[in-house]
Amino acid sequence: MVAQPNLLTFMITPRSENYSKWYNDLVSASGLAENSGIRGCMIIKPYGLNIWEKIQDELDKRLKSTGHENVYFPLFIPKSNFLKEAAHAKGFSKECAIVTHYRLKKNKSEIIIDPNSKLEEELVVRPTSESIIWNTYRRWIKSYRDLPILLNQWTNVVRWEMKPRFFLRTSEFLWQEGHTAHSSREEAIREAQKILEIYKDFIENFLAIPVIKGIKTPLERFSGAEETYCLETIMQDNKALQAATSHFLGQNFSRSFNVKFINKYGIKEYAWATSWGVSTRLIGALIMTHSDDKGLVLPPSLAPIKVVIIPVYKNCFQLKEISRIVYSIKSLLKYQKISVLIDDRNSYSPGWKFNEYDMKGIPLRVVIGPKDLEKGTVELFRRDTLQKKKLSLECLDTYIPDVLKRIQKDLYQRAFSRRERSIRCVNNYEEFKKILEEKGGLLLAHWDGSYTTERKIKLETGATIRCIPIGMPKESGHCIYSGNISKQRVLFARAY
Amino acid sequence: MVAQPNLLTFMITPRSENYSKWYNDLVSASGLAENSGIRGCMIIKPYGLNIWEKIQDELDKRLKSTGHENVYFPLFIPKSNFLKEAAHAKGFSKECAIVTHYRLKKNKSEIIIDPNSKLEEELVVRPTSESIIWNTYRRWIKSYRDLPILLNQWTNVVRWEMKPRFFLRTSEFLWQEGHTAHSSREEAIREAQKILEIYKDFIENFLAIPVIKGIKTPLERFSGAEETYCLETIMQDNKALQAATSHFLGQNFSRSFNVKFINKYGIKEYAWATSWGVSTRLIGALIMTHSDDKGLVLPPSLAPIKVVIIPVYKNCFQLKEISRIVYSIKSLLKYQKISVLIDDRNSYSPGWKFNEYDMKGIPLRVVIGPKDLEKGTVELFRRDTLQKKKLSLECLDTYIPDVLKRIQKDLYQRAFSRRERSIRCVNNYEEFKKILEEKGGLLLAHWDGSYTTERKIKLETGATIRCIPIGMPKESGHCIYSGNISKQRVLFARAY
Repeated sequence: MVAQPNLLTFMITPRSENYSKWYNDLVSASGLAENSGIRGCMIIKPYGLNIWEKIQDELDKRLKSTGHENVYFPLFIPKSNFLKEAAHAKGFSKECAIVTHYRLKKNKSEIIIDPNSKLEEELVVRPTSESIIWNTYRRWIKSYRDLPILLNQWTNVVRWEMKPRFFLRTSEFLWQEGHTAHSSREEAIREAQKILEIYKDFIENFLAIPVIKGIKTPLERFSGAEETYCLETIMQDNKALQAATSHFLGQNFSRSFNVKFINKYGIKEYAWATSWGVSTRLIGALIMTHSDDKGLVLPPSLAPIKVVIIPVYKNCFQLKEISRIVYSIKSLLKYQKISVLIDDRNSYSPGWKFNEYDMKGIPLRVVIGPKDLEKGTVELFRRDTLQKKKLSLECLDTYIPDVLKRIQKDLYQRAFSRRERSIRCVNNYEEFKKILEEKGGLLLAHWDGSYTTERKIKLETGATIRCIPIGMPKESGHCIYSGNISKQRVLFARAY
Repeated sequence: MVAQPNLLTFMITPRSENYSKWYNDLVSASGLAENSGIRGCMIIKPYGLNIWEKIQDELDKRLKSTGHENVYFPLFIPKSNFLKEAAHAKGFSKECAIVTHYRLKKNKSEIIIDPNSKLEEELVVRPTSESIIWNTYRRWIKSYRDLPILLNQWTNVVRWEMKPRFFLRTSEFLWQEGHTAHSSREEAIREAQKILEIYKDFIENFLAIPVIKGIKTPLERFSGAEETYCLETIMQDNKALQAATSHFLGQNFSRSFNVKFINKYGIKEYAWATSWGVSTRLIGALIMTHSDDKGLVLPPSLAPIKVVIIPVYKNCFQLKEISRIVYSIKSLLKYQKISVLIDDRNSYSPGWKFNEYDMKGIPLRVVIGPKDLEKGTVELFRRDTLQKKKLSLECLDTYIPDVLKRIQKDLYQRAFSRRERSIRCVNNYEEFKKILEEKGGLLLAHWDGSYTTERKIKLETGATIRCIPIGMPKESGHCIYSGNISKQRVLFARAY
């Protein structure tokens, strides 16, 4: 589970010195991912993929239990098909990998693309699959009885990335994309909102990341959507990050792909659509929500290994004595379905091991030395608080599951408090710019609802409207930029 | 779980009439897959993907429990990297999708590939990942302490296919590919053989498909391998199908990518490699091993739904009465972890439902009508044998799990007997051609070991050497083609 120890030191750049360098150092040193040498494409290493598999398993269960089924559509989309929904095509055309040939051949001493293998029509490597899926739904949807269609797929997608960053922005990434079709506008909107709730519950309770529900402005909306619902989070460096989106696509795709059904009254109608997704980006959010200068901090629910047990010994005799206890703790935990690793290697010092598991973010460390043997105790170390505690052996069976639950809760609570502290009401543009520059965070400010204002603020400050928050009390006022009437404060931030 | 019933009739072409048409009809009518309109790329529909997910889950467990970890390498391989291992490159160059640009743009009213987005170096969409992985292993492998590396990935790959067939040959397919690195030749060979055993056990016991273990001849070997181990199966139409391969790659890739490690004696050595995979092709093998003219037949271990319960009733009152029993059977089965579906829809007749579940290959059908209610019985129907049986309600709790086990065993046994019947010892070329033409099947014949003979037989008859069987008694003789000395009979067949 834990990769071979490497010879790198455990020193990573402190967050206070350079947050972005800290992030990259951490991703490498904890064995999550590394650069592949191919522009914007990373290698997700076993520890990183293990975390992604946990995310997949848990979210897949939740999607299936709400009636969604998995499917697999092709990687390639013919160009003409891709271009059918105009807004969608416009949004993704600037960043898509294009396949033009299907064969290499020898030419003297060189191997070149065989010009005879030029495709009649170029293929776009999917940046998202609305266009190919709606082209297919035309065959599947004839009557209201065929609806709803509730499908999801776990795939790789490609969006050419000029400024790649591990997990946050990569040219190829892994994700799930849901695509549903409905017989009414209301039902489709309900679906998009229901998915947002599923995402929220999953991200808050499984990843311990607090999120704010909201709606995107037209400028920030998904290309081809009528409404984009989103979950916004705030990272430790006070920059925002979009964790998930769920789109109500209206009839945009059903019109472009001519997908009509006969309704209950015998009348032909265009179908209503949603699409929604979360990606490996969540791993970036996870890192920047919980981790610290010693490395990764993982919520217990997600951690591939929840407890590591390290016996500290000077000789074989001691190891043998301690091992009896170590293995009894292991079986105790296994019985409780708590994943556990014993590290009794003598090729590494205890100190080295402590650093290694701190770096990997194992939530709980149990250390047993010769003195513990005498006293019937163990030393427990919480990765999140860095606190040590001596505990009697007899208490472990109830203490460990309890403390894991507490860690999960505390991680969420700490992130929640930080989030709350980062939200500020701002009432004029000068203050807005000042706070943005000095503190960052989420700024609640009045906006006149116009595209021009939003764009100008973005150009002048780098801040975007993350969302129009859902469920916050509405209070009217005046736009910080134009002074025009505003119906509601919106959430501004600089974002990943 | 079961897709919306479609309006197609349940008629599929009988196998005796046109085997290949039967296969295509079955794949469509049972809702496994359909054509996407993109050359050689299919859409795997929910029922088909559900089966693939079962395969994934089970095999993944087996690979993890033998020390393999999952990883994710990029979809794209730079051309120069792809070409480094010459034999490998030669083998795959003729069928690879190539990305040359990364942007579309508007040109008057048309949208075209932006010529300014031409890549400096073209990217090959991975047909398999040896070249990118060994390019990375160079960074990971320094000392014998870094070895072995035992990695696997579940991905999509692309091999341009001129004659596509559902599951058997598609331009894009899903698979797992294992890539391991070792410090000795022997250890790498052991790994390749161990994986073959894991595949054999999985395919025989989970998919109920009997396989023959063997070694490929140089002509049929994986491009870049020193030895290819394989599992061969025979389909109902007496054509062979390769179900899995495991390659000992020697030092071919470590030499090409310069991957050296310092061994225990302080000397630098090239690492030893294996790679191995199974793909969605297994679903094709599954269909052509067990299914019949009524549709799919699935082994219970794999079936997404193992039991379907259909109440037969004339009015609400009857349905209510029967439902009590139906739901008690359901909870009984759920308790035993047997997946079950109740179909009490009144929009479809019992006969329609019977056909539907026959088509989907649900192993066991339980029908309860008003008469059963009086007598305390149910009617059981085995999909594999098409046999009905009346049974008292009280016996169900032991009978159902037992009969599911029996179906699994019987499916394997039936396929095994068929396989045994299809193997024939052939002693001269005339007989060889005659049997091949009239009966097909697996022909055990002497071969002189030469490339020329093998090629000529292939050209003249369409039969290839499927493998040099492992574990069969060796008996020397004379080559059916050249008359030269032969050390061992090999297995010939026409194959998918």
